[in-house]
Amino acid sequence: MLDVLFHNALVVSPVPDSAEAGIIEDGIVGVREGRIAELGPRDPAARLPAAAETVDAKGKILMPGLVNTHTHLPMALFRGLADDLPLHTWLNEHIFPAEARHVDPESVRLGAMLACVELLLSGTTTCCDGYFLESFVAEAVADAGLRAVLGQGVIDFPAPGVPDPARNVSVAEDFLEQWSGVHARIHPSVFCHAPYTCSEKNLTSAKKAARRRGALFQIHVAETRSEVEQMRADQGLSPVAYLDRLGILDEDTLVVHGVWVDEEDIRILAETGCPVSHNPQSNMKLASGIAPVPKMVDAGICVGLGTDGCASNNDLDLFSEMDTAAKLHKVSTLDPTVLGADQVLKMATIDGAKALGLGAEVGSIEIGKRADLVVVDTDAPHLMPMYRAVSHLVYAARGADVQDVMIDGRFVVRDRRLLTVDLKDLLDRVSARCRGIGG
Amino acid sequence: MLDVLFHNALVVSPVPDSAEAGIIEDGIVGVREGRIAELGPRDPAARLPAAAETVDAKGKILMPGLVNTHTHLPMALFRGLADDLPLHTWLNEHIFPAEARHVDPESVRLGAMLACVELLLSGTTTCCDGYFLESFVAEAVADAGLRAVLGQGVIDFPAPGVPDPARNVSVAEDFLEQWSGVHARIHPSVFCHAPYTCSEKNLTSAKKAARRRGALFQIHVAETRSEVEQMRADQGLSPVAYLDRLGILDEDTLVVHGVWVDEEDIRILAETGCPVSHNPQSNMKLASGIAPVPKMVDAGICVGLGTDGCASNNDLDLFSEMDTAAKLHKVSTLDPTVLGADQVLKMATIDGAKALGLGAEVGSIEIGKRADLVVVDTDAPHLMPMYRAVSHLVYAARGADVQDVMIDGRFVVRDRRLLTVDLKDLLDRVSARCRGIGG
Repeated sequence: MLDVLFHNALVVSPVPDSAEAGIIEDGIVGVREGRIAELGPRDPAARLPAAAETVDAKGKILMPGLVNTHTHLPMALFRGLADDLPLHTWLNEHIFPAEARHVDPESVRLGAMLACVELLLSGTTTCCDGYFLESFVAEAVADAGLRAVLGQGVIDFPAPGVPDPARNVSVAEDFLEQWSGVHARIHPSVFCHAPYTCSEKNLTSAKKAARRRGALFQIHVAETRSEVEQMRADQGLSPVAYLDRLGILDEDTLVVHGVWVDEEDIRILAETGCPVSHNPQSNMKLASGIAPVPKMVDAGICVGLGTDGCASNNDLDLFSEMDTAAKLHKVSTLDPTVLGADQVLKMATIDGAKALGLGAEVGSIEIGKRADLVVVDTDAPHLMPMYRAVSHLVYAARGADVQDVMIDGRFVVRDRRLLTVDLKDLLDRVSARCRGIGG
Repeated sequence: MLDVLFHNALVVSPVPDSAEAGIIEDGIVGVREGRIAELGPRDPAARLPAAAETVDAKGKILMPGLVNTHTHLPMALFRGLADDLPLHTWLNEHIFPAEARHVDPESVRLGAMLACVELLLSGTTTCCDGYFLESFVAEAVADAGLRAVLGQGVIDFPAPGVPDPARNVSVAEDFLEQWSGVHARIHPSVFCHAPYTCSEKNLTSAKKAARRRGALFQIHVAETRSEVEQMRADQGLSPVAYLDRLGILDEDTLVVHGVWVDEEDIRILAETGCPVSHNPQSNMKLASGIAPVPKMVDAGICVGLGTDGCASNNDLDLFSEMDTAAKLHKVSTLDPTVLGADQVLKMATIDGAKALGLGAEVGSIEIGKRADLVVVDTDAPHLMPMYRAVSHLVYAARGADVQDVMIDGRFVVRDRRLLTVDLKDLLDRVSARCRGIGG
């Protein structure tokens, strides 16, 4: 007896050892105890498997939930606070002062909840976050029903919840201890801000703490050209080579951005097995640059997609991020064949999951995996006609086309309505809290 | 007595002689006989003006309808038919054969209607189209309730409805004659495909025909690098300089794409007053290149935004096109201050309208202008909080956030439902017709 059975679905999912997504027309997907228990084309001669709930997904795409490999969830409260500015003006005159004045446990929890809700409604079921006061992010994620890797921030300046930078690594260690193994959907992690904002000692001891727990170590690397120039001037090494010298790069270190990496950096990342989080829209909006993603993929690096925080995007819609990623690299290489739709769908699902160390659990529809599923409604003018579902998912669908979202076998969105959070109450509280922030 | 009164609205519109959008909080907009008759902040001491219908737009943005300066509407039937291919493979092995087999009056009308519906539901009220059998496009546009500049295609090969290329200009002249002054929302135009696909004689006589009628002359120019190299080899001139030599460039010639234009080309376009249609997503997906839009704008060229056809985008959502335009030029120039949100909103509204010769009638909310209005619902997690409406319209809103659309004072979309077309019947007919096209 299944808990939930989807039938009549157009099932679209990455499949192992294939560059192309697998497609099952008239597919059935059965869910039992939070995991995928049945999968295949419907046998027209046989009865449907018995299930407590049967969902007719006729005319819909059933796909794995999207995986967003880089967010700063609480910054949803700063969405659109400042745009179109030079990076240092944006950071020093707008974002940092707003954080200093307005970030506290309550705002972190509220902002994270706003972001979780946006992620769920647009089809993201797993995200990887890095911020401060991360325990309050964890509470929001747990309540919202999302799956997440959550990194407590480490930076060598006073930060929200960590007024004394000398304690930044120990606070992160406490977070790892507090959240390890206590919640099925929450994977604690350490988020070192960047090689240029954390000392060598803090980088290595934070990585050591993450290793001890088998936790993901996240770090912004080579986001801007000036950062790379500074590191070369100071250390005689690129940021990637510097982190490699410190012994920090391995399969559990997520290199975020990797915009200004050269051939040697790519070789190092490939050799160490380091995954990369690619955030095209944020890199574009902040004018950071264009990461050489096709070269990374060709070198065998696992590249996932991310939106970055709402202050630099300004939304968390991973469908639109797929579209942008596919198009940006075509024009930057002047080659329309790079990063095809199937490749980009993998980046936003299974490769993102692998980048976070969750590839065995989520990121594709396979028997035994967690039932993190999304139903996309294709009965709309902008998704008609449909010759190839993967093309539509990447180039024409948007978060607003997501109809149902299931995480761990439980519906969190149904008919575009959130089941885990009182949306009106949340938006009212966001409005009230943000009245004092702008202007 | 007004026909319709919007009140409680956050009115956002370009205003004359200002780089920044005008914002009216708690604004009222009154509509009478298809035009804007009242506009301003509400006087709290006064009664609301009398109106046959009063719309409370509390918590909504009221903005001018978007203007899409380049489409090939009937190609909506080829959405997602072929992606991620080299341009010549895409065109010669997929698009041209599909057109040869499947384009006829019925499919042109059906595809155009599908595109019109997508445009309306995503907040576009005016578009500029170029295709063949354009009279059937005009019928769809008239029925859907859209406003459009419609160009009958001229190309020196056999084309749908024009099997004999010797007749291409005369067919276009017939179209101009047939549709001039007969429909308030339809402006006939001539669409010469490109300088390399139309003879000198046909270019000049088509432009002459357009001039005689005061009609817009549209032409793809400098879309790809190879086109420019070929023209320089053949004529010793860039495509822009070549068209200038033919006397074709003026304020009523819309240069579409303008990707590979150099400083001299930009000088010519500015001097002749030629407007440009910028189609960033299509240029990215086909790997054509990145048009130097910030330089064009600095030179005083009027640049509007376009989506291009669905076969190369693959949607017609001008909100997402604004987002991409703003971000693409930041990263391509490594300057986060170029093409700010206000500038991009102008490109998608008033500058687009001016580019089409309709700047006196649409593209902004001003007394006396046509009432082409869009209500955006901001009561959604991805649009909260809201510090600056223009930022949200460009960087966070999507077509799916459009709640109501009015054209010429008449609602065509209300509460996200189309009032002019039976959507279910249309989508059924699209499905039936397209069954034979793919695969």
